[in-house]
Amino acid sequence: MGLAPVSDDVLADGLKRIAAEIDEAFDALLPVPLDARAKLVEAMRYAVIGGGKRVRPLLLASTAEMYGVDREAAIRAGAAIESIHAYSLIHDDLPCMDDDALRHGKPTVHKAFDEATAVLAGDALHAFAFEVLADPAISSDPFVRIELVRALGHASGFQGMAGGQMMDLVAEGEEFDLQTITRLQQLKTGALLGAAVEMGAILGHVPAEGRTHLRGYARDIGLAFQIVDDLLDHEGDEEAAGKALRKDAAAGKETFVSLLGAERARDQARMLVHQAIEHLSQHGREADLLRSIARYIVERDH
Amino acid sequence: MGLAPVSDDVLADGLKRIAAEIDEAFDALLPVPLDARAKLVEAMRYAVIGGGKRVRPLLLASTAEMYGVDREAAIRAGAAIESIHAYSLIHDDLPCMDDDALRHGKPTVHKAFDEATAVLAGDALHAFAFEVLADPAISSDPFVRIELVRALGHASGFQGMAGGQMMDLVAEGEEFDLQTITRLQQLKTGALLGAAVEMGAILGHVPAEGRTHLRGYARDIGLAFQIVDDLLDHEGDEEAAGKALRKDAAAGKETFVSLLGAERARDQARMLVHQAIEHLSQHGREADLLRSIARYIVERDH
Repeated sequence: MGLAPVSDDVLADGLKRIAAEIDEAFDALLPVPLDARAKLVEAMRYAVIGGGKRVRPLLLASTAEMYGVDREAAIRAGAAIESIHAYSLIHDDLPCMDDDALRHGKPTVHKAFDEATAVLAGDALHAFAFEVLADPAISSDPFVRIELVRALGHASGFQGMAGGQMMDLVAEGEEFDLQTITRLQQLKTGALLGAAVEMGAILGHVPAEGRTHLRGYARDIGLAFQIVDDLLDHEGDEEAAGKALRKDAAAGKETFVSLLGAERARDQARMLVHQAIEHLSQHGREADLLRSIARYIVERDH
Repeated sequence: MGLAPVSDDVLADGLKRIAAEIDEAFDALLPVPLDARAKLVEAMRYAVIGGGKRVRPLLLASTAEMYGVDREAAIRAGAAIESIHAYSLIHDDLPCMDDDALRHGKPTVHKAFDEATAVLAGDALHAFAFEVLADPAISSDPFVRIELVRALGHASGFQGMAGGQMMDLVAEGEEFDLQTITRLQQLKTGALLGAAVEMGAILGHVPAEGRTHLRGYARDIGLAFQIVDDLLDHEGDEEAAGKALRKDAAAGKETFVSLLGAERARDQARMLVHQAIEHLSQHGREADLLRSIARYIVERDH
């Protein structure tokens, strides 16, 4: 790469900054109404404010920054993609899905409120994401806004995240091979991480043909992210994770760790991160944060 | 109005035509993938093909036709709004919500498949709606597309349908007055019916200030629609409805019928339909289908 390694401080600062900005954006965009809808918005706020690593908004804003995008616009788009991520977690945690009681170290939405409110809060956050992207405040250019909607809609629908979640449901008791697990994870987690980078580039007016290397970067870190998730699920600490672990093994689901073994899985994740950074070789220091994020993905402990 | 009454045949033909076109659009837009996502897309297709009155697509396409919009574009937008309607029914029917076993005369999605698949199929239809609207096939003008997304996102989110559903959940055991019930229904049902008309006008490049009379029309038929729904729930036939009835009374929820009595509720619905048709006075025969829809809303038996 020929560039000096980025200090961890850059990433730590980036994560801290984006967390505060995203919280602020949600607080401003989701005022609690003074009527019977209050409970719904309170559940939405409970799910999106003050929790999560904000990896998707960070990826989006870091990519946007490379292309000189206005920070306010990047944060709004970051809030939109984080809304989609949050709605998918709320629905994933429901008793009929993964039946989880803990998320980000606090009770899941259906535990803190009730199941019906959790279903609705997820649905409302889903619509909210597209409302935010369609608002002229994000860009005066309607083409930029509709491209953001397209990227996020495609990444979260049946051809992306929701499709991956379905494959994951079916995975229980099935003997999926490495290729199928890779495909499943590319859809379930990778599609939205890829959309984060894509959306940053769309805000930066980068034409589709100029985003190929960014797609390569996103695909590699997406897969590395999931392999590390499997490793953390296998050997991580429940308290640091803020959620229940070792559920895949209990459910008899194949993972990268069950298929490759922990050591080869870790090697694979490192290789992917190296490859992801290689995709950024045409960029100088302006891509340092994306490089740091790639490294953070394999080094994180939760 | 000074115009001869429209024959019922016009409406019957309109309903039949749109039903076939919407089924065709879903069939083409939702091919079943040859992998583990198949079950998800099968559940989506089960929910959207061959059922429902298609009132929202009909409203959208009838408005679009007044302004000379390409039929293919109107059908695509109609499929998008019907997807939102369908996802809300799937989630509404879940055991933790209304716990319904029957919809459009066949088992609800969670009965025909399972609860987890129903949650995901609803989510996937939700994203699908925005994907369809963002696709250039609907309009080469990105401003038209983003305005469609805005209208649908706003109508279905916490400030629209989802907000109304929350009020409806809270309504159980609360003594809501007529004003609150009206507000609840304007959000729960009216917002999406209004969006149907609005989206037809957006496709027709009608500027926001030229849509005031259409908004008035939509508001009035939306409220009339819900009053008639309450009347049908009160005295209708379960077989014709294809779903369970008299659930509001059982749950102790206030409705237009419980608050006004059946006779005054019926008068109110007729008055609203009359008023809705008055809003169309600036239009000639090209608005006949919208007039027929308004009349159909009070005259339907399911």
